Amino acid sequence: MTALTLFIGNKNYSSWSLRPWLALKVAGIAFEEVLIPLREPTTKQDILRHTPSGKLPGLKIGDTAIWDSLAICEWVAEQAPDAGLWPTDPLTRAVARSLAAEMHSGFVALRQNMPMDVRERYAGQGLTTEVQADINRITAAWRDARGRFGEAGPFLFGKFTIADAMFAPVAFRFQTYQPDLPDDAQAYVAAMVEHPAMKEWADAAKREPWFFENK
Amino acid sequence: MTALTLFIGNKNYSSWSLRPWLALKVAGIAFEEVLIPLREPTTKQDILRHTPSGKLPGLKIGDTAIWDSLAICEWVAEQAPDAGLWPTDPLTRAVARSLAAEMHSGFVALRQNMPMDVRERYAGQGLTTEVQADINRITAAWRDARGRFGEAGPFLFGKFTIADAMFAPVAFRFQTYQPDLPDDAQAYVAAMVEHPAMKEWADAAKREPWFFENK
Repeated sequence: MTALTLFIGNKNYSSWSLRPWLALKVAGIAFEEVLIPLREPTTKQDILRHTPSGKLPGLKIGDTAIWDSLAICEWVAEQAPDAGLWPTDPLTRAVARSLAAEMHSGFVALRQNMPMDVRERYAGQGLTTEVQADINRITAAWRDARGRFGEAGPFLFGKFTIADAMFAPVAFRFQTYQPDLPDDAQAYVAAMVEHPAMKEWADAAKREPWFFENK
Repeated sequence: MTALTLFIGNKNYSSWSLRPWLALKVAGIAFEEVLIPLREPTTKQDILRHTPSGKLPGLKIGDTAIWDSLAICEWVAEQAPDAGLWPTDPLTRAVARSLAAEMHSGFVALRQNMPMDVRERYAGQGLTTEVQADINRITAAWRDARGRFGEAGPFLFGKFTIADAMFAPVAFRFQTYQPDLPDDAQAYVAAMVEHPAMKEWADAAKREPWFFENK
């Protein structure tokens, strides 16, 4: 198979990088990982050497780049059909893609006010009216998915899917900022941060030498 | 087949609604269309009756909603495999999805400063440094796709795909605001606005009774 290289940012901070990294891990696909530290003088030019958008993450398959988190996840799902990265039923899959895409383009207030900082705890910080609205929508979406499709396991569609990968940075954020959450959302966050691949990412984040002033 | 209803906003203004509408048209899938006018006192509650995110577009399949433009496009591509809404080669498809997803989550400056207004012409307006950076990236991405994959036709991957559907509102914006564009980007915009489904949308936009103050 052609060599696979995933270019990611700092694991403690790069929420977008986490998503395709999880998809590759859950799919059991071997890949090399190259970390390009964010906020360095050469960051932008280093990224542009590998992805045309100048943003992370990017997956290189030989010389060809896939340069968006969701597009990489879709490619992984196609490569590993037995990993169940999307629900098998077409309409359920469409709902899962709705959740994944809503996260992909939305929740700007949450992303700006509660930036991912895996290893830190900032209980009660970052909450604004707009962030609370995002949290309300997210927990309602989780409840809806789990209520309709979550029987086979603790994740949004039972088994771990790309919808969970897309919301994985939110699970870390809720662990860091600890906003009030309904019990079912708490249980989902707990299941997410206990997933072996999430723990592996968090352990690596703790050992990183970079510290940003996010607050 | 179960009844399909696509909920959209005003055709003159709703860039997100245009995308899945095009995908359904190009796929030749019959659907009912319900327009919920934006910026009315009851807009939000009218939308929430049909999509849980409170945003348009939404596709209802019987009682089940798909509530994101890209998720709807993916569902349409699966339903109509012969329509070629994604390239058939897996790696080319992953590149097409990268373009579609980059548009889905990005180009915020362009979207804010050059809101879609299909029937109007505001030549030279809306251009800021950030908008120009978006335009530069978009035209570079178009050139890259057309250069590598565009041989079979005038669209990004030759035939019309979801990548084109995602950039369709940009084609209308460039027609409205007329920023300086390289010749190949101009040619692509011309091909897009001449597409029969794009012309059908633009004709309907011209007949709409709603006029927003966007400028």
